[in-house]
Amino acid sequence: MRMYDLIEKKKLGQELSTEEIKDIIDGYTRGDIPDYQISALLMAICFNGMNVRERYDLTMAMRDSGDILDLSSIDGVKIDKHSTGGVGDKVTLVLGPIIASIGVPVAKMSGRGLGHTGGTIDKLEAFPGFNVSLSEEEFIDQVNSIKIAVTGQSKNLAPADKKLYALRDVTATVDEISLITGSIMSKKLAAGTDAIVLDVTVGDGAFMKNKEDALELAKSMVDIGKRANKKIAAYLTNMDEPLGYAVGNNLEVIEAIEALKGNGPEDLMEVVYALGSQMVVFSGIETDKAKARALMEEAVKNGSAYAKFIEFIEAQGGDATYAKDINKFSPAKYVIPVNAEIDGYVHALKAESFGLASMSLGGGRETFDDVIDMSVGIILNKKVGDSIKAGEPICYIHANDQAKADHAKDMILKATVISPDKCDHMKLIIDIVE
Amino acid sequence: MRMYDLIEKKKLGQELSTEEIKDIIDGYTRGDIPDYQISALLMAICFNGMNVRERYDLTMAMRDSGDILDLSSIDGVKIDKHSTGGVGDKVTLVLGPIIASIGVPVAKMSGRGLGHTGGTIDKLEAFPGFNVSLSEEEFIDQVNSIKIAVTGQSKNLAPADKKLYALRDVTATVDEISLITGSIMSKKLAAGTDAIVLDVTVGDGAFMKNKEDALELAKSMVDIGKRANKKIAAYLTNMDEPLGYAVGNNLEVIEAIEALKGNGPEDLMEVVYALGSQMVVFSGIETDKAKARALMEEAVKNGSAYAKFIEFIEAQGGDATYAKDINKFSPAKYVIPVNAEIDGYVHALKAESFGLASMSLGGGRETFDDVIDMSVGIILNKKVGDSIKAGEPICYIHANDQAKADHAKDMILKATVISPDKCDHMKLIIDIVE
Repeated sequence: MRMYDLIEKKKLGQELSTEEIKDIIDGYTRGDIPDYQISALLMAICFNGMNVRERYDLTMAMRDSGDILDLSSIDGVKIDKHSTGGVGDKVTLVLGPIIASIGVPVAKMSGRGLGHTGGTIDKLEAFPGFNVSLSEEEFIDQVNSIKIAVTGQSKNLAPADKKLYALRDVTATVDEISLITGSIMSKKLAAGTDAIVLDVTVGDGAFMKNKEDALELAKSMVDIGKRANKKIAAYLTNMDEPLGYAVGNNLEVIEAIEALKGNGPEDLMEVVYALGSQMVVFSGIETDKAKARALMEEAVKNGSAYAKFIEFIEAQGGDATYAKDINKFSPAKYVIPVNAEIDGYVHALKAESFGLASMSLGGGRETFDDVIDMSVGIILNKKVGDSIKAGEPICYIHANDQAKADHAKDMILKATVISPDKCDHMKLIIDIVE
Repeated sequence: MRMYDLIEKKKLGQELSTEEIKDIIDGYTRGDIPDYQISALLMAICFNGMNVRERYDLTMAMRDSGDILDLSSIDGVKIDKHSTGGVGDKVTLVLGPIIASIGVPVAKMSGRGLGHTGGTIDKLEAFPGFNVSLSEEEFIDQVNSIKIAVTGQSKNLAPADKKLYALRDVTATVDEISLITGSIMSKKLAAGTDAIVLDVTVGDGAFMKNKEDALELAKSMVDIGKRANKKIAAYLTNMDEPLGYAVGNNLEVIEAIEALKGNGPEDLMEVVYALGSQMVVFSGIETDKAKARALMEEAVKNGSAYAKFIEFIEAQGGDATYAKDINKFSPAKYVIPVNAEIDGYVHALKAESFGLASMSLGGGRETFDDVIDMSVGIILNKKVGDSIKAGEPICYIHANDQAKADHAKDMILKATVISPDKCDHMKLIIDIVE
């Protein structure tokens, strides 16, 4: 069948067959189908969607467009954790060492940050010498010996997604559920784990701005994972305000270290324990989430989680003395408070704006060529629901440039809502799809 | 505004501003905006459409993408006639000389045929020596001296349409009303006439398969024409069966010559008189369509229409002895009857299939590089509503290749419906939008 007819079919709201979807993805990956036909098809999908069978076929065709990792030589149940992105999201840095310390193998492929959300790989580079490019053998060996390894993508995983994502990004076709599902799940399935725990962020700083959309995406991804015979669950977590208090690379790493020592912010730990206990249950080490959580809490309390973190940093060649003495991280030149103008309660700290403010300080990338300033960012002094007095800091800007700090301050003031009415703290775990 | 945002805007069903539409068309014509962004936008337009203001802006931006003809040195009211395409459609060949003979200036830019519908320029080349590439000066001089000239496009009219049409043609975005309106009307407005009469064909052999769609397109084009201060009317004409009896280049030319001599088929003449009387009224020569029609009928009867045709062919260098002796047109090698298998009434002679059958004989083009065989085609022996006996010919195939004739015969038999019930002749003029 000609590509024209396949576009027409989807435009008319008809189903594409398994074979048709495979032909499209293979043809596009090979370069036989031009961008302009695919972008027309993508737009038709934005209007008419894809049913679960089509989404599965799309995901599998995208997965099969490149390498599929074979993690069978790692002992135990391999579990991946994926977040759809957030501001101040250092969950992997905290969660990984905790569950590794109680025996869950953490074989994690991570990415770099782009836009207003950060990436785990960038944060790990805060430790001088840390190697983010493990060979497949090194990666597997390390997981077998110390239960945790985090590396950037080395193999050619889901190249169809790279091409499709680049095209969606310039044709206003990024926000359609089946396309997002295919994009995320094709990479997760190519990464070769037995189980997947998804953190679907919801709110101002997330890709999904409301619960309904996030829930639809979560269900869609869980459906596909189950069809592919994976253990899978999705947690909808709140991303209306930044997670924890720190936004920015070094600042987040320091907060993660503190969390591993037992001093983690309540909201961050709520997400870490929720996702982590699900992973522990998937691993078979515990059958009950409450018991899994208790195991994790104990690992933090008795220091084994923190010890695992040190072991992990050192195993990948990083200078772990930074973890032992956080003053070694080079600080930003200026630390500037942003003060409240009135008494009241904090009603909103709009996460996207805080992410963009941190990015404008130099803490994030607009394109993959940008170099990140590791030292800049924002430390919140208050969270939504807290009371605040006029003149009291909402947060502190860590900056290396006065003009950028002024600009970030403006952004933060616009993104902060303080009013006299009382206001609840945010609920972190909004829903669970399993 | 970035192209991304404009695609997103249309995807969300919002209006594009005059300036935004102009930027898109100009940027695309210049090559600054890539095909893949335009095809995504076109698909979004297929779903969310464009309102009348946007359609007008689109049409004007496309018109202004190239040359606009200046016909002001032609005396009188200049009128263009455009058909959305049909099978057996020789209306221009008959109508042009008739109204020219009563003083209406016919300054017609015509195209070549593609697919199952023919083009006027191809048919005129049936006369050896006929020049279809007049210079602008020759064109204008000829209209002023003998009231009729027909030429291919010499200038760069609406280049944006050429690019957009080529892209629509491979991205399944051809059938959207605002895009069709922009495509047709931009060229009509660039052609510089004062008035436009549109023949919007409806039915099996037409681009618009049903009355509702055709009416919507007709209204859309008339709206745009009026906004551009043109006198304009659209006639919905029946294209369920071929128009007249002849399909194929020489065969249609011969039928047109016979029609100018007063021997035209009833259905063809119905369309010729309907469109023609509207053009005569637009010209100001008559104020009443019935009187205009009487003038036309008289021009056929008294031989002035036929004489004008001879004058026209000669003025453009064509050998008019072919018009005087139709036996000079070289005939096809074989003339093969296609006979009815049962007694009854003809209920359908599906026009598209007859057009495709003629094309398969060599009488049409699949691509613009194909060479047309002028002698092949089909002569109907019956029209819808006629009674027929088993063994009596439905039509005659004029072919130069026996295998192609056999194939065409199969197509024709499949496209013909004969049943015992009585059946009306087709109504030719379905609706008028003015």
